[in-house]
Order: sequence, then structure tokens, then C-alpha cells
Amino acid sequence: MSGSTFGSIFKVTVFGESHGEMIGMVIDGCPAGLEVDLAKIQAEMDRRRPGQSKITTQRKESDLVKIVSGIFEGKTTGTPIAGLIENEDQRSKDYSHIENSFRPSHADFTYNEKYGHRDHRGGGRSSARETAARVMAGSIAKQLLETYGITIHAYVSQVGPIQMPENKIDYHKIESNIVRCPDEATAKKMIALIEEVKSQGDTVGGVISCIITGCPVGLGEPVFDKLHADLGKAMLSINAVKGFEYGSGFKGVESRGSLHNDVFVEKNGKVSTTTNHSGGIQGGISNGMEIEFRVAFKPVATLMKPQQSINKQGEEVTVEGKGRHDPCVVPRAVPIVEAMAAITLVDHLLRHRSSRMDVKK
Amino acid sequence: MSGSTFGSIFKVTVFGESHGEMIGMVIDGCPAGLEVDLAKIQAEMDRRRPGQSKITTQRKESDLVKIVSGIFEGKTTGTPIAGLIENEDQRSKDYSHIENSFRPSHADFTYNEKYGHRDHRGGGRSSARETAARVMAGSIAKQLLETYGITIHAYVSQVGPIQMPENKIDYHKIESNIVRCPDEATAKKMIALIEEVKSQGDTVGGVISCIITGCPVGLGEPVFDKLHADLGKAMLSINAVKGFEYGSGFKGVESRGSLHNDVFVEKNGKVSTTTNHSGGIQGGISNGMEIEFRVAFKPVATLMKPQQSINKQGEEVTVEGKGRHDPCVVPRAVPIVEAMAAITLVDHLLRHRSSRMDVKK
Amino acid sequence: MSGSTFGSIFKVTVFGESHGEMIGMVIDGCPAGLEVDLAKIQAEMDRRRPGQSKITTQRKESDLVKIVSGIFEGKTTGTPIAGLIENEDQRSKDYSHIENSFRPSHADFTYNEKYGHRDHRGGGRSSARETAARVMAGSIAKQLLETYGITIHAYVSQVGPIQMPENKIDYHKIESNIVRCPDEATAKKMIALIEEVKSQGDTVGGVISCIITGCPVGLGEPVFDKLHADLGKAMLSINAVKGFEYGSGFKGVESRGSLHNDVFVEKNGKVSTTTNHSGGIQGGISNGMEIEFRVAFKPVATLMKPQQSINKQGEEVTVEGKGRHDPCVVPRAVPIVEAMAAITLVDHLLRHRSSRMDVKK
Amino acid sequence: MSGSTFGSIFKVTVFGESHGEMIGMVIDGCPAGLEVDLAKIQAEMDRRRPGQSKITTQRKESDLVKIVSGIFEGKTTGTPIAGLIENEDQRSKDYSHIENSFRPSHADFTYNEKYGHRDHRGGGRSSARETAARVMAGSIAKQLLETYGITIHAYVSQVGPIQMPENKIDYHKIESNIVRCPDEATAKKMIALIEEVKSQGDTVGGVISCIITGCPVGLGEPVFDKLHADLGKAMLSINAVKGFEYGSGFKGVESRGSLHNDVFVEKNGKVSTTTNHSGGIQGGISNGMEIEFRVAFKPVATLMKPQQSINKQGEEVTVEGKGRHDPCVVPRAVPIVEAMAAITLVDHLLRHRSSRMDVKK
Repeated sequence: MSGSTFGSIFKVTVFGESHGEMIGMVIDGCPAGLEVDLAKIQAEMDRRRPGQSKITTQRKESDLVKIVSGIFEGKTTGTPIAGLIENEDQRSKDYSHIENSFRPSHADFTYNEKYGHRDHRGGGRSSARETAARVMAGSIAKQLLETYGITIHAYVSQVGPIQMPENKIDYHKIESNIVRCPDEATAKKMIALIEEVKSQGDTVGGVISCIITGCPVGLGEPVFDKLHADLGKAMLSINAVKGFEYGSGFKGVESRGSLHNDVFVEKNGKVSTTTNHSGGIQGGISNGMEIEFRVAFKPVATLMKPQQSINKQGEEVTVEGKGRHDPCVVPRAVPIVEAMAAITLVDHLLRHRSSRMDVKK
Repeated sequence: MSGSTFGSIFKVTVFGESHGEMIGMVIDGCPAGLEVDLAKIQAEMDRRRPGQSKITTQRKESDLVKIVSGIFEGKTTGTPIAGLIENEDQRSKDYSHIENSFRPSHADFTYNEKYGHRDHRGGGRSSARETAARVMAGSIAKQLLETYGITIHAYVSQVGPIQMPENKIDYHKIESNIVRCPDEATAKKMIALIEEVKSQGDTVGGVISCIITGCPVGLGEPVFDKLHADLGKAMLSINAVKGFEYGSGFKGVESRGSLHNDVFVEKNGKVSTTTNHSGGIQGGISNGMEIEFRVAFKPVATLMKPQQSINKQGEEVTVEGKGRHDPCVVPRAVPIVEAMAAITLVDHLLRHRSSRMDVKK
Repeated sequence: MSGSTFGSIFKVTVFGESHGEMIGMVIDGCPAGLEVDLAKIQAEMDRRRPGQSKITTQRKESDLVKIVSGIFEGKTTGTPIAGLIENEDQRSKDYSHIENSFRPSHADFTYNEKYGHRDHRGGGRSSARETAARVMAGSIAKQLLETYGITIHAYVSQVGPIQMPENKIDYHKIESNIVRCPDEATAKKMIALIEEVKSQGDTVGGVISCIITGCPVGLGEPVFDKLHADLGKAMLSINAVKGFEYGSGFKGVESRGSLHNDVFVEKNGKVSTTTNHSGGIQGGISNGMEIEFRVAFKPVATLMKPQQSINKQGEEVTVEGKGRHDPCVVPRAVPIVEAMAAITLVDHLLRHRSSRMDVKK
Repeated sequence: MSGSTFGSIFKVTVFGESHGEMIGMVIDGCPAGLEVDLAKIQAEMDRRRPGQSKITTQRKESDLVKIVSGIFEGKTTGTPIAGLIENEDQRSKDYSHIENSFRPSHADFTYNEKYGHRDHRGGGRSSARETAARVMAGSIAKQLLETYGITIHAYVSQVGPIQMPENKIDYHKIESNIVRCPDEATAKKMIALIEEVKSQGDTVGGVISCIITGCPVGLGEPVFDKLHADLGKAMLSINAVKGFEYGSGFKGVESRGSLHNDVFVEKNGKVSTTTNHSGGIQGGISNGMEIEFRVAFKPVATLMKPQQSINKQGEEVTVEGKGRHDPCVVPRAVPIVEAMAAITLVDHLLRHRSSRMDVKK
């Protein structure tokens, strides 16, 4: 039983291989009457697009989105929205050398064992190319969230050991540099590190932080589909992610309840808390404060230098990346994190519509 | 749209409030013919049971499990398995003082806003009492895993700032002390810290580590239902959890691909890796190595000392825990982590049965 | 992958065997704030209860409902509602003779082959006893529908070859006789036929008609979850059902489009149709007219006379009903049809809440 | 919450409007390693294609299928299979006259009320054009069933009042005439009736019968997802369907249990029944006999003559079909019935894989 659909009401189904003809997505469950700006979809695609800067893969893809159903006269019709992107720069020959070999820390071995038969070209389905479909869906989700006044800002807060200082974030600066870190001094160091690592044919990991503002109180469905549990799953489903934490996260472990608890205050009928160790979620339900979480990405597995491995026959082989790869995944993963957060939030907004009798349609 | 069911094929539905008549669970989708040992279920319940030691809540619950369907002559019949536990020691009066107040960092406020109407007694549905139903279901899942040779061992690896040294774990020592840390020297320090914190009416957080051995290659359903994504959601759905990481986790971010990649080797037809930064999962699919993950728990929100807060009218109030609560949740959460891991694995074992044409029934 | 849950948002999970300790149900997804009258639940149970008249089985069950979660101070809390009924009159010995035999047209053979291991007592899970759990859930669904002004009336329109004349139905007369046919003259003939058939140790089939009034326009989710498709599945899932039709049904096949089409008219802003061959559903979506459908039930398989069959070893045997059975299932199936219709409608009411952007919560 | 996905494990998601750019489908959950013959897919499409004979609509569509993912080197890879068909002959102008009018017994009114905003061209999403996507998915399901030795044969058994005699069916004759009735004498009468009705600008209904051979014992998931309940839903979800019955169906109501029960016999280790009033399904589970069901289709709503109706403003208008439509839907619906039956069966085959412990992967 496969897992290519995400969401319960706002359901996103994705398809497509890295070197197949196209990739795409279907959203079933988007409410009718949402005005969709296709230019905004394309803008999100461009943030994820390969070849956008010197620190990303040089694969050339225009990633032009074609919406083929579900939108009429600029608005959603309530029927499934399907979007397609053609794959253009497929140098499948680059991958013939790994048809029978298992690249270290890649999905070659596990796909081979699980399915018996796989499209090995460019990693096939296990390639991060599939995340383009997520961004497509997420960009529509974002436009829906805008009508609720909800905004999502992700940014790179760590590359290798280089961490951003925990200041107040200026969201406008996220896109001002190619690594997508809103602190310019840190951004420079991060870029220098990525270039150094790249020059060595090596790769490095990073952390993406995400802040959601304007989320109403009440989203999240205990006991299993807590808002942070679904956000966590959404993030962990992105390629190369190794960890997720929200609010005080792993560091909060060391605190005491008396310091960690967020004190409620009320002003002009609006309830808020004086601190936000809860990360905007209490008991699995949004409390109206900013939702804050962090996502850890490992160093990309594909290296531009030889590595020891084995082939299908169990023989020792040497593999070496010949495709075009990112030395660090986080700059391009920023829009992916936002997309998955947006899809999760829209799903919970719609799920919440059936929570109470006194809100009837 | 509520979230009281976990799993796609092995579906666990839970119900019950902290101070209602009983709590329970229904498993729909357990294969027929599994021999179920009721004593083993009860043994798991006893590990989670309140009042088991001086460092846990003193609420008295025998947590006797009654299975009322789905098992006949000691074996599952393939029909829904329902299990019930009666609530015994419900001192609902302990909670009348918070009927109109919002305890800090509790779910009182968010439940109130989401549902408009709630059972406030003992936190109602938001109480960790519901995890008893998870352990009940998990103990059946564990027995199913045993027939595959899969074992799950969770343990306390950190309490507050006290961390266990990263040695080879001796699973037999986990249950040898009341904090469930397999390193005895560390366990003593942890217990001392919890007692100190308790004496102050305060609480402290902790980390539970979990290791799964014997998992076959092939479990996990890309792209969204990756094995670690579902494990992550399972863990994040447990009360008080703030973070999840697997394999190298957040620390792996600082590494380089050349150091982080796990090298494949083959011996007697069995493929393994020389290191396990992948945590037993590659591309979202188990690779046959040990599955390793860590779960962060915040300090319990209920304190035995006064805290400032507000009531439903927005007025400032002082709240103080009068119930019986844990100063640190991790010792009793160990069987909960194992239960959720077991449920997730069984679900993926069954999902995997439809992956290939060459494995027909 | 089992099928013990019905519904997408208002999810009903049922459990329990005919001769197990109890049967029960869990509703996950009932909105918070619904006032629930327990006496109304019990009244529905009594309509389905065995032993209610001379033409039903004489098994004695009080079918007292115990709600153990999800309702507090008379109102739903938005958390799972669990309800239990104890089995009282379990004469399991009545069934030892069929432990190894397959009763004709029963589920003994198919359950045995599917699961390998089964609870044979009283048919176990395949017994119609499980429908008590459906009526329990349905009676809560009905109370929710009442708040929308939606009412459901099912009645017996045919027993064997005896059909009710197609007049305007007087709903008040449905419960005025033991066969639940609102036409008294027909009811007398039906009762006489059932008594005759019973005296012969034989059984007979029947048809239940159902009319839903007050359903708003807009329920139903094309293309697969059309309202009549989900109603059809709901009905076909009831024991002994062999057919479902709505509106003009099978007879409509012989008509012409020019006669069959329902002409729209408008009066005081309300759209209706002059005829209702559509049965209240067009394009899979309710159109505001009465929803009308019919359900065919086969003659009960258990006879009070000897029948030829085989046992597990393939040897010829003679089986004879020794339990207590209905000679005709339709009188007691009336509340079951209503229950399943109510559950289906509530689910679609809640699903419809996410159809449009201009209806925000 | 929309309904564009069918199936639990073999999940088919469809999209596309009648006059949009393309329609398509995604299958998530097809096991890896299935050899897929694209020519067979196209052959099924051609059976459903408009313009195939004088008694169908004259809309010209080549309905060429393009598979863009999930199949590699002729075999499924276990990843989502996406297929697309471009719409070619879209004469959207034919529909401008009904942009503001509600055609009688069409979905214009209900879609308008449900969604507020709709693509009216050619009925948009409510058009039967979407069934092309079902046939695409069904043709892959059929190829999977072939590997199990399961075959599905649907045929037209009734048009208007003309019924086929209930003989043994010669499946080879189904495709020998344009109405797809295997009895040639009846076929001639049916064709004559359809031509007569067409010449009057009118339409007529019909019945499609379906027989499934080679189905193993054990498919079906009580209590809600009984095999016939899911088949019934599948059929009722097809445009213009008004009824579903299996085995003895509505006629069986008049029988007695002693005549209706199917007697088990055993020969060479194989259990069968001497009659098949059960239609191959007992207790919701296939029993190894032929599965038999019948589906009622109403007369097509679009007429080639003027009809009275109203517009969005509630004013009386006259509508008249200007598009190209079928005078009788059943000849082209035969492959659709087979497709939905195939999808349902494959889903249940895969669901059954998790029924028992003694069948492990």
C-alpha cells in the first residue's frame, strides 16, 4: 500500500520519476472559488528550480507548470486540480554506471529490495525531483492560506556548524541571498562553506527553520493527528531530512516546568502567552501564537568523488557521482518546507470545519 | 475530522477520557491466526501504570485489560479486537478548580476554543491517560512482531541535562531501575534529579532512545509514508513530545557527506553497512540495519506549586496542581514509545505485502 | 485490510461477535456540542431488538446501551464516542453442531477460507447481531440530522410477492404494526405470510423502502463518492441485502428521456422538480427533493428444517437451525436501514463543509 | 472532502473536465513487476470511445493514452502510474447556451449550488467524459487480474423493455455487434429500438450484466467493505446508474429460503454450490463461484429536442441539446462497468493479502 498521497481533506497525490517524461500532482479537495494566480505558482517553482545559483546543481529545468483541470476562469471549481511539469534536461546516460550498483546512503539498495524492479535513471522516484510536485501543490495551498491571513516563512538557520544568531528575523531578507539565510553576515559564511565543500567534491548538511504567523486557534486533531505530528510527518517525508522539533524542541528537555510553561495573558479579548516554548501548539492544537519548528537535513549522499560500495551481485565497486548535484540541499529546500507546511495547514483548516455543531454550513 | 485512528491497514482507534468510565481501543486489521498472550499485554500495561514507583504519579489504577472481541480460543480471528480498561481512581473533585481556568502549557485553552464544550476532569481527552489504550494495542502489535523476529527496545537516555554515555546498550538492564535507563550510574543520577525536582513541586524533561532489531529490508512507503516519517508522526503524537530524530539526526547536519555516508558491504549474501548514520532507513525504506531514533519530552506542564494564568473570562487567576502527577514523564513513557513503534512497524509490514507481483497470496 | 469502519469524517468503527462478551461502536468525528438524548438511542435499539414480536427471533436481549466516552453533561465533546452492549442470551451450545459444517448460503465457508480461524458461535462476526452497533451509531447520527431538519423514514414495502400499493405514505403508521408496513391492509397479509412461512420452518425475503425529507441541496462528492453510491454501499453492507435502487431504479430503464427527465420549476426562490424520478439526487448530489431508495433482502439462510451440506472435510452432512432466527428479516431491518442512511448523510453533511471558499469557519 | 479517489490499496485518482485540456488518472498502489501491454489499454479505450458506431455520440476523440510515470521497461515499478488523454474535439461553443440554464435531470443545478463556481462546458466534471480515465485505470487492473486467471465479461442484457433471454452466455459474441449484447437476435431488436428513439430526438435506458470468472475464495472485507458493497458502490458511481443487484437480486425477495439457499458440494477438494443465487458472494466474501451482478442505467438526460426548464435567475427557459450525445448509454458503458469491476477486484485482492498470519511476505 503505497504512500503517494498526503492529506485527509486537501489531498495531494504526486507522481513522476526524475528522468521520466514528466512529473505532476493532483489536488483533490481544494474548496471551490479560490482565485489562483498562476504567476505565484511559477514563482515558487523558481525558488526550488535547479541551476538557480552557483551553489546548486547545474541541471537545467525551466519547471514550467501546466494546470490541466480544476481551475476555470481563474478560480478553483471544487474538482481535482492537476498540474504537470515536463522533464527537460534528462541526461539518463549519466546514470547507466549505477544501474547495477548501490550508491552509499542512497535509496538504490532499498528500492531494489522492496520493488524488485526500478527506474534507476537519476534515482527514479527516490530523486528529490519529486519535490517539484510538492511545491506546485504547496503554492496553491499558500494562496488559500493568504485568504485567511496566514503566512509561512522558512529560512536556512544552519549550514554545517555555522548557525544563525537567534535574533528577530527579517523575512524580507530571506530571498536577498542565494543561501536563503536572513542574517547577511551568517549567509556569507554559509556560502563560503558550501563553496569550499563543493570544491572538495563533498557535501554538507543544514537546518531550515520555519515560522507560521496568523494561524487561528483550533487547528490540530488529537490524539494522533496533532498539528505538530502532521507537520513533523510532512517534514520528515522530504528527502534528506533526519529530524524535526518544534517550540523548545530537544533543548527544552533540559528546562524545568516552572521555566518552560508559557504564561497566558489576555488583552482586548485576545489570549496570548508571554513566552512561546510551546511553539504555537498546545495539546496538539494551535493556540494562536507563532508556530515555530526546525528541520534537520543531512549532507547530500551523492559526492563528486569516488566512494566504495557494492553492486547487485555483492561485489565491491567504486561509484562516483556523474550527474549534477547540490553540495548542500537546504537553500533549495526552503520552498519545499514551506510547501509541505502549507499543505498541512490547509488540510487542518478544512478538517477543523467539522469540529463543532455551532458552525454549520 | 478527528484523529483518533492510527495506521492504514493495522488500524488502531482509541477512545476514553481521563475521568470517564473507561478507556479503550479497537484494532481493525490484525491478521487472523496470531496467538495472543493476555499476560504479556498486562505486563506492558504494568510498565506504563501510574503509581509504580516513587518517581511517578501516585494515582492508583490497576489498568486491568479486558479483551471483548476479535480473539477466540487464544488466537485472533481477523475481526476487530476491542480492549477496555476501567478507570478506577477518578478524583474528579481535584479538578473542579480548573473548570474555568487555563493551566499554563496545557491543552485547556486550545480544547476550549476548538470544541467549545469539553470534559475538563483530569484534562479529559487531552490527559496522557489515553496512552494506556496505545500500550494495549501496542502490546498486541509487539506479539505480532515477535513472530517476525523483530524486537523493540526503548530506554531513557537523558533526564534534564543528564545524558547517558553512548555505549553499547544492555537491554536487560532497562527494567533494572525505576527510571528505565540501562546505564546504572546514570540512572542513579537521573533518579536523584527527578526526586529533587519533585521536592520543589517542579518538573523536568527527558529523552527516550529506541532501537529496533530484526526489521527486514523493505518497510516504508515513499514518498510521503516513509518509514521514519510515520515513526516520527507516531512519536510526535505522544503527549509532551517536542522533537524526533533518527540516525545521525540534528547532529548529522554538521557532518560531511564523505563521513556521513554508510558504506555497503556484503557477507554471505547479506548486505549491511559499516556505519549506521542512516539509522536503518534509506530513502524512507528500512535497509535491514538497526532502526534508531530519539524522542524529546518537555517538562510536564502540571506543577505542584502556584502559577499565574487566566480564566475563561480573561481574568488573572492562580492555578496549582492538586491532582497526582509525574515530575518527569519519561520513565513511564518508555512502553508508550515502544507501543507506537510497534503499531507503526506492523502497519508497514502489512502495507509491504502488496508491494510486488511476485509475492502473491 | 479489514472493513470495520464506515465514513470519511463521521467515522463509525464497530466490533463484537454474536456470542462474545459484548458488541460496540466508536464514532470518531462527531462535532462537539450536539445534545444527545440517551432515551432516543435506546428507543432505536428497541426497534431492532430480537424478541420484539411473534414474527421475529425469540433470542432475548435487552440491548441496553452504555456510552463510555465522548459525551459530557449531555453533549458531545468532539472526542470519540464509544458505546457498548453486553450480550446476554448466548446459547453457544446451540452452535456446536455447526462448528465443522458449512450452513448453506451462510458465511461459514467463506470466513473459514478467508481467515483460517473463526469464532463459529452464532455465526460470530458474520451474524446480524453486529447491526446493533450500527443502530447505536445511527441513532446519534439521527439526532444530529434532526438539528438540520432532516428526517429518515424506512418501512417494509414488500414481503415475498406481497407489495404495498404506491400511495402517499403515512409515516405515523409505520410503527403501528409488527411488520412495519404503513399500509395496514398490506401489513396484515405480510404478517400472515410470514407466520405461514415460519410454521413451515422456512423463510422469505422482502423490500425496505426509505424516504429522506429535508435534505439540503449539495450533499454528495463526485465522481466516486456520489451520494447514492455511498447510500448504496451502506445498504449493501447490511446482512442479507441483494440489491439497491434509487429514484426510478430498475424500472426507469424502460422509460424514455422525455418522460423520465424531471422538469425544474422555481417558486419563491426555491427550486424543485415536478416529478422525482431522480430520487432526490442528480449528478450524485442531493437536489433538495425527497431522497428515495429501495433495498432488497433475500430470504434468511437459516431454516428450521434439515438441509444438505458439507463439512470442513468435504463430507456430506445435514444441518438444521437450532438457534433462534427470524423467518423474515425486514421488520427488524427497518431501523438498520435508517441507521445506515443517517450515518451516510451525516458524513456527507460534514464532507460538504469543505466544498467552498465562501463558507469559512 | 472530495471523492475523486477509489480504492484502499490500489488507489485510483481521476481528474479532468469534459472540455478542459486533458483528462487523466493516477494509480497509486499497483504492485511492482506487472507487465503492462499498452496496446491492451488502448483497445479498452477504443471500446469506450465516442463515435465508434451509428448508435453512439459522434464526438470525435482518438483517446490516445500516454503513460508518463510508474512503468519502466514494460513493467510497473511500484510507484504511481499516471496516464493522460488529451481532449481533442471540444466544441465548447455548443454549450454557451446552457451556461446559465439548468438542463433537466442533469447535474447543472446541483453543481451550481454545491460549488458556486463551475466549468459548464460540456457538463465539465459531471460529464461522462471522466469515465475514460476509469477505463484507463481499469485496463491496467484487468491485466493484473489476468495473472490471477480472473476474467470479467460485461454485456448489454436489456435496452428499454427489450430483455435478452437468460441463456448461457457466449462471451465471444459480445463484441460481435454494436450494442454489445451477446444474443444476436436480441441485439438486432435493441439496435432498432435505439435508432428509433434517436430519430425522435429521445433517449432510452438499459441494463448491463456482468460475470466474473476465476475469482478465488476469500475476497471481501466485512462488515462494511463486503465485496458486493464495494462492487455496488463502484457501479453506482458511474454516470446514469440507478440500481445494482447481485445474484438473485430484487427477484430473490419473492423466493423462500429452502429454494434460495445454495447447496454446497465437494469434488476433488474443490467446494462449489449446485445453484448460485448468492451470485458468488456469501457473507460479503467471494466463495469461488462466478460473481454475477446487474446494473441499471436510466435514459440519457440530454435530448435532441426542446425541454422546459429554468435558468439561474429562476426564469423559465427552453433548453435543447446541441452537443453530440448518445441516445442510449449502455453500449459504451460496457467497458466502464468492466473497468470499475476490475479496479474493485484488484483492490480486494491486495487487501486480502493482510488477512492471515500464515501468509507472510
